[in-house]
Amino acid sequence: MKSMEKPVLSFTHHSPIFFFFLFFFMIISTIISSTSSVQSRPTNFPLPRSVPRFLGKFSNQIETKPKRWIHQPYHYETRYFTQRLDHFSFAKLPSFSQRYLISTEHWLGPARLGPIFVYCGNEGDIVWFAANSGFIWEIAPQFGAMVVFPEHRYYGESMPYGSGEEAYKNATALSYLTTEQALADFAVLITDLKRNLSAEACPVVLFGGSYGGMLAAWMRLKYPHIAVGALASSAPILQFENIVPPETFYNIVSNDFRRESTSCFKTIKESWDAITSEGHKENGLQQLTKTFHFCKQLNSTDDLVDWLESAYSYLSMVDYPYPADFMMPLPGNPIREVCRRIDGSPNGTSILERIFAGVSVYYNYTGNVDCFQLDDDPHGLDGWNWQACSEMVMPMSSSQETSMFPAFEFNYSSYQEGCWESFQVIPRPRWITTEFGGHDIETTLKMFGSNIIFSNGLLDPWSGGSVLKDISDTIVALVTKEGAHHLDLRASTPDEPDWLVDQRETEIEFIKDWIDSYHERRKATFKL
Amino acid sequence: MKSMEKPVLSFTHHSPIFFFFLFFFMIISTIISSTSSVQSRPTNFPLPRSVPRFLGKFSNQIETKPKRWIHQPYHYETRYFTQRLDHFSFAKLPSFSQRYLISTEHWLGPARLGPIFVYCGNEGDIVWFAANSGFIWEIAPQFGAMVVFPEHRYYGESMPYGSGEEAYKNATALSYLTTEQALADFAVLITDLKRNLSAEACPVVLFGGSYGGMLAAWMRLKYPHIAVGALASSAPILQFENIVPPETFYNIVSNDFRRESTSCFKTIKESWDAITSEGHKENGLQQLTKTFHFCKQLNSTDDLVDWLESAYSYLSMVDYPYPADFMMPLPGNPIREVCRRIDGSPNGTSILERIFAGVSVYYNYTGNVDCFQLDDDPHGLDGWNWQACSEMVMPMSSSQETSMFPAFEFNYSSYQEGCWESFQVIPRPRWITTEFGGHDIETTLKMFGSNIIFSNGLLDPWSGGSVLKDISDTIVALVTKEGAHHLDLRASTPDEPDWLVDQRETEIEFIKDWIDSYHERRKATFKL
Repeated sequence: MKSMEKPVLSFTHHSPIFFFFLFFFMIISTIISSTSSVQSRPTNFPLPRSVPRFLGKFSNQIETKPKRWIHQPYHYETRYFTQRLDHFSFAKLPSFSQRYLISTEHWLGPARLGPIFVYCGNEGDIVWFAANSGFIWEIAPQFGAMVVFPEHRYYGESMPYGSGEEAYKNATALSYLTTEQALADFAVLITDLKRNLSAEACPVVLFGGSYGGMLAAWMRLKYPHIAVGALASSAPILQFENIVPPETFYNIVSNDFRRESTSCFKTIKESWDAITSEGHKENGLQQLTKTFHFCKQLNSTDDLVDWLESAYSYLSMVDYPYPADFMMPLPGNPIREVCRRIDGSPNGTSILERIFAGVSVYYNYTGNVDCFQLDDDPHGLDGWNWQACSEMVMPMSSSQETSMFPAFEFNYSSYQEGCWESFQVIPRPRWITTEFGGHDIETTLKMFGSNIIFSNGLLDPWSGGSVLKDISDTIVALVTKEGAHHLDLRASTPDEPDWLVDQRETEIEFIKDWIDSYHERRKATFKL
Repeated sequence: MKSMEKPVLSFTHHSPIFFFFLFFFMIISTIISSTSSVQSRPTNFPLPRSVPRFLGKFSNQIETKPKRWIHQPYHYETRYFTQRLDHFSFAKLPSFSQRYLISTEHWLGPARLGPIFVYCGNEGDIVWFAANSGFIWEIAPQFGAMVVFPEHRYYGESMPYGSGEEAYKNATALSYLTTEQALADFAVLITDLKRNLSAEACPVVLFGGSYGGMLAAWMRLKYPHIAVGALASSAPILQFENIVPPETFYNIVSNDFRRESTSCFKTIKESWDAITSEGHKENGLQQLTKTFHFCKQLNSTDDLVDWLESAYSYLSMVDYPYPADFMMPLPGNPIREVCRRIDGSPNGTSILERIFAGVSVYYNYTGNVDCFQLDDDPHGLDGWNWQACSEMVMPMSSSQETSMFPAFEFNYSSYQEGCWESFQVIPRPRWITTEFGGHDIETTLKMFGSNIIFSNGLLDPWSGGSVLKDISDTIVALVTKEGAHHLDLRASTPDEPDWLVDQRETEIEFIKDWIDSYHERRKATFKL
């Protein structure tokens, strides 16, 4: 929490989980960009290269930053619920206050079995998720649904030990930041809420995007009695161990560029050597600093490589077919624009100048940024880094053959070493698959699960680790060819393409079906 | 662990979970009875009246007692596996050694997908469960199955903190004795075992009786990817909150007596007042001590009431239709014999003398006991008491109208007070239903579960808290009208009644089906 005060954009090599938070990052970025320098972070933190470093700080920022940063278009009450720190032991630990946002404005109430829509809060301030999950708010009235956004422990205001500072103090304090505890928080909160409202019979529908989508899907599997269904948007539940090849993420990013232009893909692929060779020259770092318009001189080419890699991965996640004004202003098909600039620079433009022209689409589309600033905070103990270093070990490699990124092979030993150095924690890379199912998870879902929508856009590099085909009649994949990272959860816009309108309608139909069949089961039970 | 040295039989008012361990108790009793006094315990321990006090000490005894006490008819290796103390946090806690018994004697091996039979160890020494679960050993060869008996944490040799003494030292040490941790132990052990044997594709079948049966059923619900099915014998998963009426247990015991003889039922029901009124007389306790042949004078009538209540409840659990030589020698239909003696005593026999004659069937069928001894150890920190005072809160009442026992209403406040006094722990009476499903658990099982056999004998008072009707094609109830507590898991005997033979055959058929359909699914997957 130390670095809460600075709006820092952090990323790293091969650490794309970080990108989950893209949307929120984008909003912040709009503001940051108006300050005419964009900060990013170098690789010289002690975390291993491949730790899926995440924009956890982001959630910290919004706690301390003026709330005007967060556009809050929806009405709700903010409440707090006392939770156990360890649901699965009786260790004498202090309880903590879990924040949740609640709106009963459109709720039909218990007598009419009004549904309860619950968003599974993920790694950030819940106010952000509420503000950026307009779909849920938009459809609640037609369902007569209550809306609840419980915050994930260790994020936002839901800090154990009284404050973020204490909660993030060390590995001991952080040790209860796990997915199972978060799921149990949701289960306990929902159960208590329903009991207090005499709403035990009201059906609960879960929502979640990214990590929140994983939680929603897992919640459905682990607590089937709590909710009747889950919309898990962009939820890469297969991105563990070797369920999907570790190259998947970077291959998808690379393909997103290649589909726009083979020469663009090739230019990017060749640029890494050009950077290295420039960096080795006398005054090379100085020259690179100038070419890429950094405010301060580069310490190493690694920082530049990170900065570029992050941009490409982000671009893949938000490679939407229409301008995304609601975030950092980007054109529709932003990768197409990047490649247009890379490919279209005048003859004689050097490879590095082309790259700069391309990446400027991402970092400076408004043209307001004079120079770019790399964050040099050596490491920030943000929550997602902890999660990546404990349970959420998602191996990522970059293939020499198929990726446009520098080749990189996931190495668990060095990953573990880095995690130890950073947090004094030893990751448990096999725990998630033991707890939630591994290679057999699709079979498990088929046999024992029901009522989950896995929605994914194929341009999103996270789609590769998600469920992309129907598993059964009720565990379905909604795949949009031109979609990217969990767009379906956001508020609708006038520019909505047809496929997105269709996708949302299908989702509404499924949710209706879940609720209807819940009512039918209930009636059948009463008849008996 | 302090009282390990003494073979103590502990019980209490309204505390029937204790009876789970009946079979093991019986074996010990045979030995105890040869010492010509049977010890029992009074109610003056600080635990609340209604704590489902359990024969946890029993499991301690067998650790220190010569192993000849345990008949070990089956061949296996004893191994140890390093487990985390808290699977759901990264708290820096010492790991512990989980003991497990393993036999690969009949296993078909990984290439032929030999099944793996896993018994979910419950609250006691796993050697005992292995010795008393002959059914599993008997059917393993025909399935070509490996047999594994993992021990439950905090029982037998599987003690955290290096020893039972340390593990049971206080509430802090005991705090990781929970069902969720035990289930995770099983999941981690099975996953690791399969990986090490390259047996990932081998189907696992779970078995369990009593609390172990609850674990097997819950395991199937929470870890459906770990096993293809579960035989949950006498598993009262509905005995929480008010899912079944709290009077259920004692009503069943009472009905077991009433079905033999209404007058017997009435005599027992009237005996409590007779005891109280005798106790109030001058020298009344002395007279009662004499009538009931206690070695030492009674301190209160409560001790006597406990002693009788326990006997009746035990008798219900083992009210088998044939002599049970393998345990404490009892006649077939022991309740019939108790009632024959109560009803058939000569005219002029007092009510208390009749009661003594009846209860002697239970405590002294061999006739070797000269006097009975009540255990006066004020309390023993056994594991089951801890579990009952933390998660496993099973409310029990005795109805004035329908029960032959003294009327008693479950009172959560005094329960909680007693638990605090005993363990400095506050129970979480709603946690089990939040975690595993409450009133909706049958629906949950129907919708999201499969491949569970709930086997129950209707004479068993625990049957009232179990699943007694088929929930779906694959979640089935095998109910035997004349059966009692998890007899189906024991080794077959020459005296086996037809219904028991049939029950076991049906169980074998189901297990075959689970494995066959697993193979079919696998083939279908490979074909794709």
